[in-house]
Amino acid sequence: VDVTLVDRDNYHLFQPLLYQVATSVLDPSQIAYPIRAILRRCRNAKFKMAAVTGIDLDGRRVLTSQGDIAYDRLVIAAGSVTNYFGIKGLDRRSFALKNLGQADLLRTRILEHFERAAAESDPEERRRLLSFAIVGGGPTGVEFAGALSELIHHVLSRDFPEIDVTQVRIVLADTQDHVLTPFARPLRRVAQRALEAKGVVLRLGVMVKDVDRAGLQLADGGRLDAATVVWMGGVRAAPLADALNSERGAQGRIRVDARSLRLIGRDDAYAIGDIAQLGDGSSPLPMLAPVAIQGGQHVAARIAAELSGQSVAAFSYRDKGTMATIGRHAAVAQVGRIRVSGFVGWLAWLFVHLILLVGFRSRIIVLINWAWDYFFRDRPVRLITVPDPKQPGEG
Amino acid sequence: VDVTLVDRDNYHLFQPLLYQVATSVLDPSQIAYPIRAILRRCRNAKFKMAAVTGIDLDGRRVLTSQGDIAYDRLVIAAGSVTNYFGIKGLDRRSFALKNLGQADLLRTRILEHFERAAAESDPEERRRLLSFAIVGGGPTGVEFAGALSELIHHVLSRDFPEIDVTQVRIVLADTQDHVLTPFARPLRRVAQRALEAKGVVLRLGVMVKDVDRAGLQLADGGRLDAATVVWMGGVRAAPLADALNSERGAQGRIRVDARSLRLIGRDDAYAIGDIAQLGDGSSPLPMLAPVAIQGGQHVAARIAAELSGQSVAAFSYRDKGTMATIGRHAAVAQVGRIRVSGFVGWLAWLFVHLILLVGFRSRIIVLINWAWDYFFRDRPVRLITVPDPKQPGEG
Repeated sequence: VDVTLVDRDNYHLFQPLLYQVATSVLDPSQIAYPIRAILRRCRNAKFKMAAVTGIDLDGRRVLTSQGDIAYDRLVIAAGSVTNYFGIKGLDRRSFALKNLGQADLLRTRILEHFERAAAESDPEERRRLLSFAIVGGGPTGVEFAGALSELIHHVLSRDFPEIDVTQVRIVLADTQDHVLTPFARPLRRVAQRALEAKGVVLRLGVMVKDVDRAGLQLADGGRLDAATVVWMGGVRAAPLADALNSERGAQGRIRVDARSLRLIGRDDAYAIGDIAQLGDGSSPLPMLAPVAIQGGQHVAARIAAELSGQSVAAFSYRDKGTMATIGRHAAVAQVGRIRVSGFVGWLAWLFVHLILLVGFRSRIIVLINWAWDYFFRDRPVRLITVPDPKQPGEG
Repeated sequence: VDVTLVDRDNYHLFQPLLYQVATSVLDPSQIAYPIRAILRRCRNAKFKMAAVTGIDLDGRRVLTSQGDIAYDRLVIAAGSVTNYFGIKGLDRRSFALKNLGQADLLRTRILEHFERAAAESDPEERRRLLSFAIVGGGPTGVEFAGALSELIHHVLSRDFPEIDVTQVRIVLADTQDHVLTPFARPLRRVAQRALEAKGVVLRLGVMVKDVDRAGLQLADGGRLDAATVVWMGGVRAAPLADALNSERGAQGRIRVDARSLRLIGRDDAYAIGDIAQLGDGSSPLPMLAPVAIQGGQHVAARIAAELSGQSVAAFSYRDKGTMATIGRHAAVAQVGRIRVSGFVGWLAWLFVHLILLVGFRSRIIVLINWAWDYFFRDRPVRLITVPDPKQPGEG
């Protein structure tokens, strides 16, 4: 078997800790690992850095920015992108958190707004600069809101004696009447109380209709104004799914046979991860890392078995549970019927995320940075690095 | 005394290790330290992030992108910028290494050229992509050339089995007939042999006249073609010196009184560091960190003494020596008459640079990354992060 891995980036990104790059805790190299370093051990695997522009399923060719690649078997694992639900201008007027560039940009703008607020004499404008709206009460929104609050109240409050941190406003909004939908009700309540204890204002049961310079227009006629809008309102299948002539499910995901993970009507193409809709149509599996990892393992085993003429059992997902942290000493986790929260949940969260990181060096350095944050309330990456084209001379 | 520190960046940059950011060894936060974190201990110091656009010496006002700042005493310490010696297009067609953005960009382009070379079928174009010309045989050029060679021969050679590393060409050019002018002759020879042992080709006694798409045109009619030109050919005073109505010296530096570091003819304005020309006109002090640090200490002591009516001795520079590393086990150092090279010089270099870093956390993490590089020949930050506007879909 000859394997060619095609990716537009030359690194594997550990997305669950991306919010810590955006909140000054971690540097990029701690969550991004070079793909070629991972593939060194695999003699029959090679890497091609290219953007995939389309797939010719009938002709068995992947079309890329670096030329076509012919294949015998295809595995599509292009992941997901931010879902703006068709709200015009939202992509330009809000920050998202799906890749390294966005994390660097978001960290830079948060710190820049504090610098501008420190220099601002108009109290109205100062309050505006210090207002943050996060839309989406899923794990990403909750973790980012908690980490942003701690960055501001533990670290920036001491960096900026000229700013009154009681003027900072962090709002977390969601269409549901609760946060963390995948979690059991008691855990959701724990998370909400932990967020409120950190000064995060919850606006639940609200829907965003429009965005303008001042902030968000809500469906009920209300407004949610903020200088910084962070959109974590949902994801959808990567655009590659749109370019494919294949059946689609919810969030534009490619429908696959639940047993084999093959594209409907194809015996040489598979889809796994966020871009694929596994399970039956009524209750598809969630867009989570364990689903992607188990899908990848299944397809690898299936292809190997087919080539050696053996058979393989149908794919079945083993629920590994899910967890989210709100900040120091506060996290929620559930695995089947086991539910953990508070300090124990937080330790479990730290441990699991350290283990999942690629590379021993990354684990040591993440541990050091976490310890620094914990003991000294210090976050090292308070760096304004991305020049703002609209603010010449400020970057 | 009320002190206002104005800087366009919100961090202090430890420039001597910038080349390690460009060669995948270090992340930005290990050499960039938030200014506000440094100033926390100083109750009478505040920070203003702004670009200085000019100085009205007679009106005692600093003009910035964020409004004017009135002063009683002024200390100018705006440093230096790359000197292109008026060669047209050189700034656009070459890489420099004076700030974090440039280091990220250079690292990204080096790795990108390897990705493109791996996909390239034309052997001519592949050789072009793998050619690097570094102009300037001072410490920065020598250290970067050595680190680039090790990145390629120790790390990328294993990442890219499809590339024949004997096709890589790293050329270090200088107008002098030797590298490392500030060092004694025996040390220069040690450095040259160490560079050649790493496969770096030396082109000495050549002068760059022009730059085009293919590379450099030399004054003697020869050429130095390379897909990547790194310009370390010299520095000059920051442009702020040009905007000032004050006497200037070599490299556009502001002339100051050798005893008091005051601007010529002013008793309320001082200049220190790379932007200032200290010493007498015939043999000004070099543009080095120890000169800047000692200048800063002197001016601080002088202002404090003047305010309390005391007198202070004239500034005198104590030579702290200078050092440069060419790579593992190879460095040269001289302090007065003491000259060290090889393994001992290398250990001295490592030790001194670790000590000079700001912050204990940075020191630990730099040490871990160095150990990783040393023992596993692994450089973690092999990340292509800066999108190339000319190569859509590749970044």
